[in-house]
Amino acid sequence: MTDLLAATLARIEAADTGVRGKTQRALDSKTKPRGSLGRLEELACTIAAIRGTVEPGRLQAAVVVAAADHGVACEGVSAYPQEVTRQMLDNFAAGGSAVCVLAREAGAELRVVDAGVGAPTANIAEGPAMSRDDALLRVEQGILLANELAESGVGVVGLGEMGIANTTSASALVASLLQVEVASVCGRGTGLDDHGLARKVDVVGRALRANRVDAADPVSVLAALGGFEIAVLCGLALGAAANRMVVVLDGFITATAALVAARLAPAAADAMIAAHLSTEPGHRVALEALGLRPLLALELRLGEGSGAALVLPLLDASLAILADMATFASAGVTDAGR
Amino acid sequence: MTDLLAATLARIEAADTGVRGKTQRALDSKTKPRGSLGRLEELACTIAAIRGTVEPGRLQAAVVVAAADHGVACEGVSAYPQEVTRQMLDNFAAGGSAVCVLAREAGAELRVVDAGVGAPTANIAEGPAMSRDDALLRVEQGILLANELAESGVGVVGLGEMGIANTTSASALVASLLQVEVASVCGRGTGLDDHGLARKVDVVGRALRANRVDAADPVSVLAALGGFEIAVLCGLALGAAANRMVVVLDGFITATAALVAARLAPAAADAMIAAHLSTEPGHRVALEALGLRPLLALELRLGEGSGAALVLPLLDASLAILADMATFASAGVTDAGR
Repeated sequence: MTDLLAATLARIEAADTGVRGKTQRALDSKTKPRGSLGRLEELACTIAAIRGTVEPGRLQAAVVVAAADHGVACEGVSAYPQEVTRQMLDNFAAGGSAVCVLAREAGAELRVVDAGVGAPTANIAEGPAMSRDDALLRVEQGILLANELAESGVGVVGLGEMGIANTTSASALVASLLQVEVASVCGRGTGLDDHGLARKVDVVGRALRANRVDAADPVSVLAALGGFEIAVLCGLALGAAANRMVVVLDGFITATAALVAARLAPAAADAMIAAHLSTEPGHRVALEALGLRPLLALELRLGEGSGAALVLPLLDASLAILADMATFASAGVTDAGR
Repeated sequence: MTDLLAATLARIEAADTGVRGKTQRALDSKTKPRGSLGRLEELACTIAAIRGTVEPGRLQAAVVVAAADHGVACEGVSAYPQEVTRQMLDNFAAGGSAVCVLAREAGAELRVVDAGVGAPTANIAEGPAMSRDDALLRVEQGILLANELAESGVGVVGLGEMGIANTTSASALVASLLQVEVASVCGRGTGLDDHGLARKVDVVGRALRANRVDAADPVSVLAALGGFEIAVLCGLALGAAANRMVVVLDGFITATAALVAARLAPAAADAMIAAHLSTEPGHRVALEALGLRPLLALELRLGEGSGAALVLPLLDASLAILADMATFASAGVTDAGR
């Protein structure tokens, strides 16, 4: 544990339930039947509770894509070759990837973090992905980025990632942290066939046997089963929660990073919103462990933060409802729904 | 059947499956695993097929709120008094209602149509809501509005409504058109309690007995079980489909109007997108009959077109993906997913 990490964990508070209740009462005064905007109202209350104010206003969003390579890619666990991570980094820079397009649409800033592209972790099927110091370094990198974003006025951080073979790392992490069956958290990633999926399950099993970790020590699990980008995202989630920023999760990988974060600071989960439920089976398992209910179910399985960017207009809409709708009193509408 | 209605029905074509296939191939060339954007890709293909072009570009959207009063309100089938319809019309004009806020957020024009506020239909529990001529007049009103919107460059029309007691009318229409149990299509509307819900089921049953209609003649069913605003929305859906505009349904009422439209021209359903699944039980029944799968499930039960406005950014996002993402070839990314 570093000083920065310890200080960050100490700053993370539970969401403000008092503010949540007051926000719901403000929504109840608006010209609509009580609760008739369903999960949109819940979303506004969640954001208000995270921000600690019944008037959160409009929030500037950023989507952070952390990218890294994984030594376990050599086991043939992805449909794509490792070089694609680097190629996609160029594609992010050129603005041509899905998350670039979706972040632009949502009016969100896009930040790409090279957490280890071209310098992969070690193969987790044979031993630890990285040293504990390397893991802590990446977690701190994420915390520092969160602090910087908070200082620049960002209120919502979408988590995204790119890394060929990183669903294998995420499956190993979730299986290890939650002590669940490997097969229950392994999916087809970017497009494995049945044979590829069976190989992935085998590789994750080998990774768990090669790395005897203590599930009660999240940093050691993170270092063992890795993903440099997952470590950065874990730090980003912690730093964002410490700064009362709204943390928007994307798919399985980001939920895994969030799970590690919540193991370090359970209250960090209060700052999180699950954008969507993907087709990766481990995603549901991780979200349930976090106590999060996804907003969308559009059968996305891309990653990059694409789902996080896609859900941002819903957050904006919920805040607009809270800020801009007339009340029964102001509009002179009969309020029979009391 | 009027000349305008007949001519409109004759103009409605099925969605272009050739264009759909070509659009999917265009999406398959983008830098992402095939199909990994799930229903967002499906949405882009649907819009392209409706518009009849693989390059639909960006589309200007309008949300139309048709409002009317219902004689059946005197049966005590709503939690709110009838005067609220008029009050909400003023609230729409002042920009304070939920759909006003959500349409602004989505960059969509809002059109409010007074289809009979303060001049309610007759009580359907005792006889027909309106004459056949009155029904046709409203359907034509909707068609003419669709033609006007199409001429002004609108490509997407969201359907919305306001009318105290209109879920009762919609329940009667769906039960009659689909020959299903009354109780299976009656819900709590804006907030009925158990007693109110039982009364509503009873009133709808009385309406069906008081109006012996021929389910094979959709206009006669519409006239009998009514809703001036439902008739306008039916015409709007037909006119929009005839103009190759994308028709975005909101909740139960708009799905009911769409169902009447699809009974007049089955191909009109090809132009429709279901924004969301509400908590009204009849909504699911109507959408299934239309063969539509809702995009969102956010427990909305407000109406007004709020859900239609809320989903518009997803349509924009799907079109942005189609228009703006790099291809494997243009970005120099290895395409291993063939």
